[in-house]
Order: sequence, then structure tokens, then C-alpha cells
Amino acid sequence: MTELVSIILAAGEGTRMRSRLPKVLHQVGGLPIVAHVARAARAGGSQEVAVVTGPGHEAVRETLAAIDPGIRFFEQVERKGTGHAASIARDLWSTAQGYIAVVYGDHPLLRAENFTVVTDRLDAGMDAAILGFQPADPTGYGRFITDGERLLAIREHKDASEEERKIGLCNACILAFRAEVFRELIGKLGNNNAQGEYYATDLVELANAAGYKVGYGIAPEADVMGVNDRAQLARAEMLFQQRRRAEMMRAGVTLIDPATVYFSHDTQIAEDVLIEPSVWFGPNVTVASGAVIHAFSHIEGASIGPGVSVGPFARLRPGATLEEKAKIGNFVEIKKARVGKGTKISHLSYVGDATVGAEVNIGAGVITVNYDGFNKHDTIIGDGAFIGSNASLVAPVSVGAGALVASGSVITEDVEADALALGRSRQTNKPGRARDVFARAAAAKKAKSEGK
Amino acid sequence: MTELVSIILAAGEGTRMRSRLPKVLHQVGGLPIVAHVARAARAGGSQEVAVVTGPGHEAVRETLAAIDPGIRFFEQVERKGTGHAASIARDLWSTAQGYIAVVYGDHPLLRAENFTVVTDRLDAGMDAAILGFQPADPTGYGRFITDGERLLAIREHKDASEEERKIGLCNACILAFRAEVFRELIGKLGNNNAQGEYYATDLVELANAAGYKVGYGIAPEADVMGVNDRAQLARAEMLFQQRRRAEMMRAGVTLIDPATVYFSHDTQIAEDVLIEPSVWFGPNVTVASGAVIHAFSHIEGASIGPGVSVGPFARLRPGATLEEKAKIGNFVEIKKARVGKGTKISHLSYVGDATVGAEVNIGAGVITVNYDGFNKHDTIIGDGAFIGSNASLVAPVSVGAGALVASGSVITEDVEADALALGRSRQTNKPGRARDVFARAAAAKKAKSEGK
Amino acid sequence: MTELVSIILAAGEGTRMRSRLPKVLHQVGGLPIVAHVARAARAGGSQEVAVVTGPGHEAVRETLAAIDPGIRFFEQVERKGTGHAASIARDLWSTAQGYIAVVYGDHPLLRAENFTVVTDRLDAGMDAAILGFQPADPTGYGRFITDGERLLAIREHKDASEEERKIGLCNACILAFRAEVFRELIGKLGNNNAQGEYYATDLVELANAAGYKVGYGIAPEADVMGVNDRAQLARAEMLFQQRRRAEMMRAGVTLIDPATVYFSHDTQIAEDVLIEPSVWFGPNVTVASGAVIHAFSHIEGASIGPGVSVGPFARLRPGATLEEKAKIGNFVEIKKARVGKGTKISHLSYVGDATVGAEVNIGAGVITVNYDGFNKHDTIIGDGAFIGSNASLVAPVSVGAGALVASGSVITEDVEADALALGRSRQTNKPGRARDVFARAAAAKKAKSEGK
Repeated sequence: MTELVSIILAAGEGTRMRSRLPKVLHQVGGLPIVAHVARAARAGGSQEVAVVTGPGHEAVRETLAAIDPGIRFFEQVERKGTGHAASIARDLWSTAQGYIAVVYGDHPLLRAENFTVVTDRLDAGMDAAILGFQPADPTGYGRFITDGERLLAIREHKDASEEERKIGLCNACILAFRAEVFRELIGKLGNNNAQGEYYATDLVELANAAGYKVGYGIAPEADVMGVNDRAQLARAEMLFQQRRRAEMMRAGVTLIDPATVYFSHDTQIAEDVLIEPSVWFGPNVTVASGAVIHAFSHIEGASIGPGVSVGPFARLRPGATLEEKAKIGNFVEIKKARVGKGTKISHLSYVGDATVGAEVNIGAGVITVNYDGFNKHDTIIGDGAFIGSNASLVAPVSVGAGALVASGSVITEDVEADALALGRSRQTNKPGRARDVFARAAAAKKAKSEGK
Repeated sequence: MTELVSIILAAGEGTRMRSRLPKVLHQVGGLPIVAHVARAARAGGSQEVAVVTGPGHEAVRETLAAIDPGIRFFEQVERKGTGHAASIARDLWSTAQGYIAVVYGDHPLLRAENFTVVTDRLDAGMDAAILGFQPADPTGYGRFITDGERLLAIREHKDASEEERKIGLCNACILAFRAEVFRELIGKLGNNNAQGEYYATDLVELANAAGYKVGYGIAPEADVMGVNDRAQLARAEMLFQQRRRAEMMRAGVTLIDPATVYFSHDTQIAEDVLIEPSVWFGPNVTVASGAVIHAFSHIEGASIGPGVSVGPFARLRPGATLEEKAKIGNFVEIKKARVGKGTKISHLSYVGDATVGAEVNIGAGVITVNYDGFNKHDTIIGDGAFIGSNASLVAPVSVGAGALVASGSVITEDVEADALALGRSRQTNKPGRARDVFARAAAAKKAKSEGK
Repeated sequence: MTELVSIILAAGEGTRMRSRLPKVLHQVGGLPIVAHVARAARAGGSQEVAVVTGPGHEAVRETLAAIDPGIRFFEQVERKGTGHAASIARDLWSTAQGYIAVVYGDHPLLRAENFTVVTDRLDAGMDAAILGFQPADPTGYGRFITDGERLLAIREHKDASEEERKIGLCNACILAFRAEVFRELIGKLGNNNAQGEYYATDLVELANAAGYKVGYGIAPEADVMGVNDRAQLARAEMLFQQRRRAEMMRAGVTLIDPATVYFSHDTQIAEDVLIEPSVWFGPNVTVASGAVIHAFSHIEGASIGPGVSVGPFARLRPGATLEEKAKIGNFVEIKKARVGKGTKISHLSYVGDATVGAEVNIGAGVITVNYDGFNKHDTIIGDGAFIGSNASLVAPVSVGAGALVASGSVITEDVEADALALGRSRQTNKPGRARDVFARAAAAKKAKSEGK
């Protein structure tokens, strides 16, 4: 495969987002917009990926570097147009072999196919190839002036004639060139236009004028939407989710209401998993076959084993590992904890920084007290233990296999295997005394209301 | 009314579902697909219902038998087409009087009217009558070759001419016959086609060839969708829910956002109930007039009385019975428990296997400790009792009318009426000691971080 | 600006709602339908607003009076049509200067522009001006018989000729007049029609007959939908929410799935707030910049400060005030409580009637026991205090700054600053005893099952 270098343009200010966060760091499916573009560039065959950032956008570099350490960064200090932005990556394009693609960085739904459909044109002998699409409403887009499979020019909407505005095929977001053609033309771009900017799209006419052949590929509209404001961001998220939901259903996952299940870019779900409505998957979740995720579950950073039951109203936080047939019920939060096979944590519990064995029963209202205001401590519970309701396990602490913690106990010392641990007071009943207490409270209420 | 026998074809493998569960057992509105069909067949006048299952599909038989014990089952060992499947129910059709309907078992949105629109044609003198519909996109469906109100043939898409493919009226999922006509023709079906299968739809041409009159009825497209994969299953669920939501609103129920309220096939809700968004009704729920169901509630097997308030964030499980004006608040789970008139369980509680009287106040964090690891035990709370926050009631236990349980108590013995029960330690304050504790924790944190 | 008097017609029975509540009191965006109309009338320049109610509809008066004390009320004892209803507000129109608008009270999506588009016509010299719209399906609506910018008549659907029914421009819900024209014509209305009612729309022909000029303005269809049943109520809510969601996104709020976030009529959210799916905002909520609202949050009457994190699974009730960077986590309910800067209430807690200082850590399962069955009492927690998990704070009670409450303690007396408070029993372990307990429970289970 011919070597491909992608130069991703991510320097735009994004003022219509009305955000202090750089536009390309807003997320779709839990991944920043520009990271989607970089990922698509990689999947589409880019050995080298460069990102051109705006001034002061260190956050873009840091975020991307953490996701893909191979990315090279360039800073566009002055915003003088897309052609100027692409030219800044000179260190990369000056020596590149093969192909160079200039890619808009605010198109989070791009995928590998959108790259290969243009590099295929280059492979077929074109000197340049541009990605186009046919929007439902072409108003505002640059129109493709074509002659058969040749692209002669991209005409900006405002410069287009009445006749040209009827053209349905428009510029999308990838401009690919044979490297030597790009090198020859990039320096020839002018800025003789209203904005005084250098437009990468002008490379098409320059190439034709120099006798090069420019072709084009076509992408589905849903793949090539740009994000300029929060309404478009929401729309991109919706399209992304629709794509993921369709993939999941094809793979044998039941979504009772696909419209209210939200996947992350990296969610992995096996066959024959059933997901009720209103479930949120944050990043880094895997779900094994046969699991059931009930409604109103919020899950991130979790590994859910075969046949596990989660929710309704479950919160799984990073580090939750649920082994086969474990059950996490309602109003339960699990954080950084391994929950053994067949173990049940059914109601109103917080289990964090813990290792819980197999076939353990954790009663309602049980809390692992893992934080002392400064440090987090671990709780270890052995196989087959039974933790009574409303018990507090003050970490660091361990409860041995087969042990029993009585309801309402505060456990501050280790419990050996098979032991019974109690930490609660004996009950005393005071006959008739409730009447007195209520009478006093009622009198206080009366006095208060009369006092007003 | 002429006797009707329905033979439901449910032997398909459903490989596109990618599931170990037989396709027709996947659920819509909490009821298996094939059970919807059987129910529609009954509502449409079928005195006898037979289901033809695939080999190894005992689960289909068991599930259906539990829902409708009158159903008769036949097994199609080899999959040789719909005509062959229908023929297997010979015990039934060989002696049937009146009408015989062959019905596809993967059409969960079928209803009574879809049966009567064809049996009406038989009543009107036709010898056979087939259910058709006009799909938005007829590609792939068998076309109805008609002559006025007569149906001459059903032409499979792949066998249809260019001209025939323009026909918009297509085969749906019910083929009905006068019993003697069915008996005469079923044995004449051939399998002279590419798949080598016996097609029930060929009965139409056979009937015409034998001089019988074949008519047709028409169903709305939304009634006759078949389910072959999980995306279609999700679509069927959506159509089912839209139908139920419209019924509910017509009946005087307010749905603030109908799109996020999910009903079961048997949910019953009275006039002037208000339901906030994001509410899930599992099977077997009734809601009386004046109740309010707040957002994020998950309800199954529950009876909700007049003026009751549920949620937000309430979980009602099977056996929850809430009497007039009871209030179940946030992060509360009720299971197999009767909650008396005017009683409030407002926050963070689990009440299971319990009988709670009227005008009881159950504080935040109260738990009925109903399970000892082997057995479930009952809790009984009398009228007007007050259970303090974070109390644990260790069942079997009873708290008398007007009694008061102090906050944080673990109650293991019965409390008589009007008594005050305490089971907690006296508070001690250690002046200045918090500073020492925090200093030690801070030092431990420092040591730990330096140790790294 | 010329003085404007709006007479809102709200006397309809609304039988298709199937509700005991008067139709116009059903809510959209947390505000009664008729209050939306009154608010739009005010915003559209009405100095005086009158509402004509049906007999027995005191609730309409009381509700509206609480929202806008300046509204004047008239009762239509007999329902004799819209013209009759308008005539009942004689005290107002008999002396009014300027303009009089008759407005249908069941149109919750009306806004200021819908008023000004007709009063602009009056300003431009028309004697009357009626609001029209172009419905996607005009069936059933009164058609506008126009001549250029003049409106000659409103033809009821049932009285319209075949030709007239092709007219797309229809009557919406505001009829405005110069006051003296209204006074001249209102008494001339007849009831010579099938229903025997006086129709306000007949004023158009009367005006033309008397030589007056009648104009019209046009509203978007989404602004002028009337609500007659619960399906239309749900549709109005959806349109209202779409409007609010678009406003929020334009203002710099990220909505990951706009379709599942519900705003109230008065919700205020600052720039750079991120809201996950499935969030409910009841009335009277403000959210400051930088806050994050996680999924499954139910919020009303709350003030959320800058950088605060809420949810998932948080319930904020009226009087919750969260200061900068506070964190309210999962399964936490806050009611009438101030939560200081940087304070964390992360899990399974109820904090009500409380004042919590800055940098406080409230452990999992902590409950402020604020209710004794008769009175609510306050809890005060000082800066930097640490409340251990599963503790109960029995109000009235205060915990001083820097104090530490041990896990599982029931605190009934004040804790001074920097003190350590304990109220729990010492733990005892009974070796091997769990085995005995389990053995007994297992035996009981066996006996029970054999006893059956």
C-alpha cells in the first residue's frame, strides 16, 4: 500500500460553540472530535498523522498525544486559512513519499472508507482526489465542478453562479494528493479573496491548471458532517450512536429501545446480551455473553462477565470487575472492586477498593468504608461470606470465607473464616414510651405554630 | 361465528438474530413474539390454536403452554417450507370444521382485526382469503396478482416480472381457507423450486386452478411486520410501544414524553394518572386514578393505588401493593410488601416480605432484613408506627401500632404497640481527637507517596 | 406603543382530555397551558390580560392569580361560543383604549412575536388583524378568504366549498381589533348556525361588511397548536422542549442527547455546562458555568454553582443550594440544604434541612434525621468536618468544623469543633459461630420445604 500522510486541520476557533474548550476537544461517543478524525486517518491507512492546532491549544496536543503518541503536532499561529494551515506541516510533507491527505479536523464521523475511496482514485492514476458528498441541502457548501470522473474545481457557494448552485455534489473534508504534486502546488496558493485567506480547496484548480488529473470519491452524508456549534455536536453524537447501535444489534445484542442506550467509542458487547432502555456506557466497558443490563444503569471502566445481571439503577465505576453470574442490583455503586462468581450485591450498597469472593451475599445498605479523608484502604471478603444489612466494613479490613457479619455492625477488625462478627447494641424496648415522645413532638409543633 | 383453527408457524431458525434463544421467544412488550401471535389468533376468533415448532424448541412449547394451556403443539423435524410446516398439524386440520388459518409466528404486532378482515371474506363466500398489506417499500415481498376482489396468485419477488414488481399490494402473514378446501389442497403442494421447499403461498394458485374463489383483506403495514433480526425486533418494540402509548393517552393518562415510557403487554393504567419521562413498566402492573409516577421508576408486578406517588428513582418489584395515597420516594425498593394507606417510605429504603400498616413513617435508610442466606422472613409494622432512619428490622419481627424505633437501631425482637425501641450505643465525644486522627492519616498518606 | 388588552378564552370543557383537571391547567414545561398564553400576551405587549374561565373553574383563577396577580377574571356561565366568551369581559373592553385581542387559551406555544405580527398590522392602519398559519394538513381549520393583504372572511371547514378547502392559510388563535371597532361589532354577532353559538371568527365578516379593513399575520405552525387531548398535550410538550433545547445549545450548553433532557419554563443554564442524557429539570433551577449534570438526575428548585458535579442518580429538591465545586454523587438526595464549596456527598445519602460547610466529606449512607413525625429540625456541619459512612445525624444537631464522626454512629448531641464523636458498639468476633448459624438456617429451610 502506498504510504499515506494525513494532515489534520484542527486550528479553528470554534466560536459558535461558545466554549472555553477548543472545539475539536468536545467529545462524541466519549472521544474528542479530532481523535475520531485521527483514528479514521489511521484506519484509512495513514502511517503518519499530523495535527495542526490553534495557538494556545496545548490541551489538544496533550489529549491527542495520550491517545495516539505517534501523532506529530504543528501550531498555526495566525489563522490564514486551510491552505496555510496545511502548509505549516512542512516538516512532514516536504519529505513525504506516496500520498498526502489534508483532512478537516472537526468531522467526527469520518471512517476508514472515506480515506480509501479517495486513495483508491490515486492508486488508479489520479494525481489528486477529493472527497465529496451529496448533502440533502447543498446551501453553503463548495460545489464540485466535474467533467466525468475528473474534478475541475471546487466553487465556493458564494462565488457560484445560479447554475452551479444547482450542483448537488459538494466538497466534504478530505483532499488527497500525490506527494510531489502537493509539494509543487502548495506554495502557489494565493489569498486573493475577500477573507485574504489561503484555501486548500484552491489546490484543485491549481492542479488542473498544471495539467494534473484530479478525481473524487463520494461519502455518505452521515460520514462527513462538520461540527460548528452544540446543535451540530448533538447531531453528530446521534449519528455516531445510531451507527454503534446498529452494529450492536447486528452482532446479536438486544436493545429494547436503541434510542436511549448510549455507547462509547470502545464499548464491547458480546452476543445475546439484553439491554433495557436508558443505559449509559462510558469508556472502557466490556460485557460478556448472556449478561442482562437493566434500565437506568450508568457504567464506565467495567468488565461484566457472562450471565451477570446489572441494575436497574446500578452504577459501575472504573475498575469494577464482575465475574460470572454476579448480580449487582438497585442503588448499588461498585468502584475498583472485583466481585466473584455468583456473588450478590442487590440493594443500596457501596463497594469500593474491594475484593469480594464467590457466592458472597452482601445485604442491603452495606458500605465498604474505604476512605479516611486522606487514604483509600482495601476490603477483602472471602468466598461464601454473608454481610448483614446496613453493616459498615471499615477498611483496611478482611472478612474470611464463610464468615457472617451481623446486620448493622460496624466492622473495624478482621473477621476470621467461619466466625460471626457483631458490632451493635442490644435492643431495649420501653413500653408506652412512644406515646410520650410523640406527645412532646406534637406539643412542640403546636407551640411553634402558635408562636408564629 | 364459524369455527376457526389457527396454525401458527414458529419453526424458523432465526439465524439472523444471532441468539441461542429461539427467535419467536424474543419478547416485545414483555411477551414472546409467538405469544402475541397466539393471543391475536384467539382475539380474532380462533377456538383452536396450534403452534408448529422447530426441532429442539421445547422452550417454545413450555413458554406458550404456561401462557395459553389450550395451545396444541406440533414439531417440524425437517425444515421444508411453510406449506410443509402447516401440513404437520394434520391432527388438527384433518377434522376441523369451519375455517383454517395458517399464520406466520414471527409477527408480534398482529391483532384481532387482521384475522377478522380475512375471515370476513370467507363469511362473504370466498373459499380462501389471504391477508395483504401495502409496504412503503415492497422489495422482497410476494406480490398479490389480483383481479378485482379476487386474488389469483402470490408471486415471489424473485419470480416477479418487471411489471409485477410495480405491484404495491403484498403478502402479509395470514392465509385462511374453508377447512375442506384446505384439506383438498394441502396435499397437492409441490416443491418444484430453487429451495426445494413447500410454500404455503402456492395454495393460492392451486385454489384458483381448482376453481375456488380466493379473496384478500388488507392490514396496516404497522400490524404485519415480521421479525428476523434484532434491528427488526427493536422496531417491533417501538411500534408496539407507540400503539400502547396512544391507547394510554386516549384513556386519559398524561405522558410527558411518551417516547421514554415503556409499557408491558398487560399494563393497566386508570384515568388522570401522570407519568413523567423514563419509566419502565414490566409485566403485571396496575395503576389507579390520581397516581403520579415520577421519572426513573422501574415497576413490575405491582399494584399502585389511587393517589399514590412513586419515585423518582423507585423500584417496585413483584408483590408490591401500595394502598391509597402511599408515597414511595427516591432510591426505595419495595418487594412483596403491602404498604398501607398514607404510609411514607421516602428515601433509601428496602422493604421486602413485609406488611406495613397505614400512616406509617419509614425513615431514610431503613432496611427490612428479610434474608438469612437460606430463608426469607416477614416483617410486620402496625398503623402509625415510626421507624427511625438507618434502622434495620431483622425479620421475622413485628413493630406494633404507634411504636417508635429509634434511628440507627437494629431491631431483632418484636416491639409492642406504643413502645419505644432502641438498639444503639450512647454517643461519646472526644475533644480534639479528630485532629490527631487526621494528622495520622495525613502522615500515612505522605509516607506512602514518599515510599513510591 | 399602543395599549393592548388581551382577552384569553379558557372556558372550554376539554372533555377529550378525560381529566378532572380543567384542560388549561394541564402543564407544558411545568407551567399550565393558560399561563403560557398569559405570559405570551404580556411579552407581546398586553398591559391588561383577562381570562374567561368556565363555571366551577376556581382552580384556574387561583393558579393564574399566583403566577400573574394582574390578571382579571371573568366567568362564562353558559358555554355559548368564543364570541360570547369574549363579550363577557365587558368591564375591560367597554373602556379599553388602543387594541383588543381575543386569544384562545389552549395554545401553550404562543409567544410574543405571534402577538406583534398582528398588532403590527393594526399599527400599519388595519382596523382588525387575525393570526393565521399554514398547517401541514388544513383539514378541520377555518380557511382565510383573502384579497391581497386583506382578510375578507374566515370560512369554517364544514361550510367551505371544495375550492375553498384548497386554501392552505388557516385561522390560528389571535383576533386583534382596534378597541372601538371591537366595541361596535361584538354586539352584532349572531348565533345563526348549527351549534347556536356566537363565533368570534364571524367578527371578520362583520368588520368587512361595516367597511373596516381586516389584515392578517402569519405564525409558524409550531407556535399555534391547540391542545384538546393528551396526545396533543404530549406533542405540545415535545415542541416546547425542542424550543428550549435549541435555545440551550445556542447558548453554549452541551446536551449529549437533547431528546432526553427536559427543561422547565424557567430553567436557567450558563455556558459550558455539560448535561448527560436523561435529566429532568423541574421548576426553578439555575446552573452555573462549568457544572456537569450526569445522567439520571432529577432536579427542581435548586441552585447549582460553578463547577459543581451532580449525579448520576442525584435528586435535588427545592432549597438545594450547591456552592462552587461541590459534588453530589449517586443515590443522594438533597432537600432544603446549603452545601459548601468543595464539599462531597458522593453516595447513598439524604441531606435535608441542613447547612453544610466547605470541604466537608460526607460518607456513604449518611442521613440527616430531620423529622420526628411532627417537626423538621436542622443539622449544621462545620467546614472540613468528616462524617463517617452510615452515620445518622439526629437533628437538631451540629457538628463543628474539623470534627470527625465515626462510621455507623448515631449522633444525637452536638459535636464540638475538632472532636471525634463515636456512637457505636465494640466489635466482637465469635469463632466458628457462622457455621452454626448457617446450619440452623439451612435446617429451617429444609424443614419448611418438607413441611409443604
